[in-house]
Amino acid sequence: MFIDVKETATLLSEKNNILLLCHSHPDGDTLGSATALAYALRQTGKNVTVKCGDRISPSFDFMFAEMVEQDFEPEFTVAIDIADTKLLGREFEGIYASKIDLCIDHHGSNVLYAPEIWLDAESASTAEMIYLLICELGVQITPLIASCLFTGVATDTGCFRFSNTTVRTFEIAAKLSALGADTYNIIQVFFETKTRTYAALEKLAIESMRYYCNDRCAFITVTQDMYRRSGSDESEVDRLANLPRQIEGVLVGVTMRELKDGSFKASVRTHGDIDASEICGRLGGGGHMGAAGCTLYGTKQQATNSLVKEIQDEITAFLAKNN
Amino acid sequence: MFIDVKETATLLSEKNNILLLCHSHPDGDTLGSATALAYALRQTGKNVTVKCGDRISPSFDFMFAEMVEQDFEPEFTVAIDIADTKLLGREFEGIYASKIDLCIDHHGSNVLYAPEIWLDAESASTAEMIYLLICELGVQITPLIASCLFTGVATDTGCFRFSNTTVRTFEIAAKLSALGADTYNIIQVFFETKTRTYAALEKLAIESMRYYCNDRCAFITVTQDMYRRSGSDESEVDRLANLPRQIEGVLVGVTMRELKDGSFKASVRTHGDIDASEICGRLGGGGHMGAAGCTLYGTKQQATNSLVKEIQDEITAFLAKNN
Repeated sequence: MFIDVKETATLLSEKNNILLLCHSHPDGDTLGSATALAYALRQTGKNVTVKCGDRISPSFDFMFAEMVEQDFEPEFTVAIDIADTKLLGREFEGIYASKIDLCIDHHGSNVLYAPEIWLDAESASTAEMIYLLICELGVQITPLIASCLFTGVATDTGCFRFSNTTVRTFEIAAKLSALGADTYNIIQVFFETKTRTYAALEKLAIESMRYYCNDRCAFITVTQDMYRRSGSDESEVDRLANLPRQIEGVLVGVTMRELKDGSFKASVRTHGDIDASEICGRLGGGGHMGAAGCTLYGTKQQATNSLVKEIQDEITAFLAKNN
Repeated sequence: MFIDVKETATLLSEKNNILLLCHSHPDGDTLGSATALAYALRQTGKNVTVKCGDRISPSFDFMFAEMVEQDFEPEFTVAIDIADTKLLGREFEGIYASKIDLCIDHHGSNVLYAPEIWLDAESASTAEMIYLLICELGVQITPLIASCLFTGVATDTGCFRFSNTTVRTFEIAAKLSALGADTYNIIQVFFETKTRTYAALEKLAIESMRYYCNDRCAFITVTQDMYRRSGSDESEVDRLANLPRQIEGVLVGVTMRELKDGSFKASVRTHGDIDASEICGRLGGGGHMGAAGCTLYGTKQQATNSLVKEIQDEITAFLAKNN
């Protein structure tokens, strides 16, 4: 069931007509990993296509610049950076959940739904794994492949700022940069450019910051009304997730956003060994040690309370252990 | 007059009793480079000390953790990351300006005041140069030296986000990380942690944002009153410098801060090949292509107008060339 990079390379080299699936609410890692692998496998003469059951932000358009359409019946389906078939999105889950042959992922919370799985929970991004896989395949890393992979490497580490960043992360960044990845422009787009509407949303979000648990927990709440007032929308909200944890003394930062159906999606970011995936797991969500998410129901106050309760327990345990 | 890394290593290896000078308003690069070089040279049995004519922020204390005091009469003085003796600060300029034997620097605007100079304007930081120098000296890079250097590498590239970041920057970051640099905590301190007072200042600064030159130029103005209202002070203001340039469509971002004497210090950040050091140079300042500074006099409005005028000229020329 668990396979390594060599076995993954061997398995893929034996197949043709390969479908690569990305998770819904697609990010730089799932898309960069899938497109890079597609370009690499196509170099070996295979038919490969990338699909995502959700809207893809135009900022990722460059990844598909050389993705000439290929018409074929998939015979091997690979889930890329997908911890759970739920994350395929409702429509794709119905179509593909039972058809996945291989999963390549770095989420420790992976529910092991695939018959074959290459899982490296120590890897900061799936893109780092795909870099190693392409090296194993012996295929040339073009500047476009390097840019796709660099996007995954940079976005899943918050541009080298999160605790998942390792020596290997910097080494691979150096290699991809040398291979022609458009590192500067990628970083500008995903980290250093704010639209006027995002800047307006950020201002409202910062004003919404509230503190709990003796200032050890900071909450930003983004409402549908804030989208209206700023001219922004949900596609820009992810970048707020890191802000509450940045405040000095804060151990757990939360960005909670109201969805159109009135429910709330919370992104939890933690410091030290406070486990965000444990907090979110108890509320039906999941993710990584330092970054996880869950969906909450009820009023804004009820949603906040239920999450603060779980966070308080983790912070109390953490402080007891470290004092 | 111009020497390279080998000649610099040879020159230093012939000397004992070495004084390393940092620039005033000291940052991670001048301090990290000087302390790293001091530790490295001390390993070879030399007396070396690091001096700065200005207050050093406590966030740099870790760099001096193993800097046992040595009492000696300096016989060789090296300016580290100092483009002009003016930048030594008034007191140190009086004492040391005529005594500098060697300058190690990466500022293209260096006024070439030293009899011997190793200048690499392509290097993103002086710390990258010191890394190469220490390798040339054949001295062991301890975890503390690696941390000092990593601080310079990270802070002078805006944590790998500025256009000065190269393949070599990532390679050296990987090497320093492997050698035990405390990369995560350094990045947390300098990029991912906001004091409550800084967060309050940032909020006021964002509210002060004004646009000029058809929205191609964004200005933040920080007044002494904002320090009072936020509880913050000048030691926290540098981090604001990058904010105006982040707004989509902005080519030149300015953070102008009121000093206690009523004058204004402007930090100019540019995109593309708009030369910030050219803009600031015309107003008596200097720096790099993408980041420079100058001091302005008169009322806030007069200071703003004189800078906007120079910026408008550069933006007009840039747009004419690129359209």
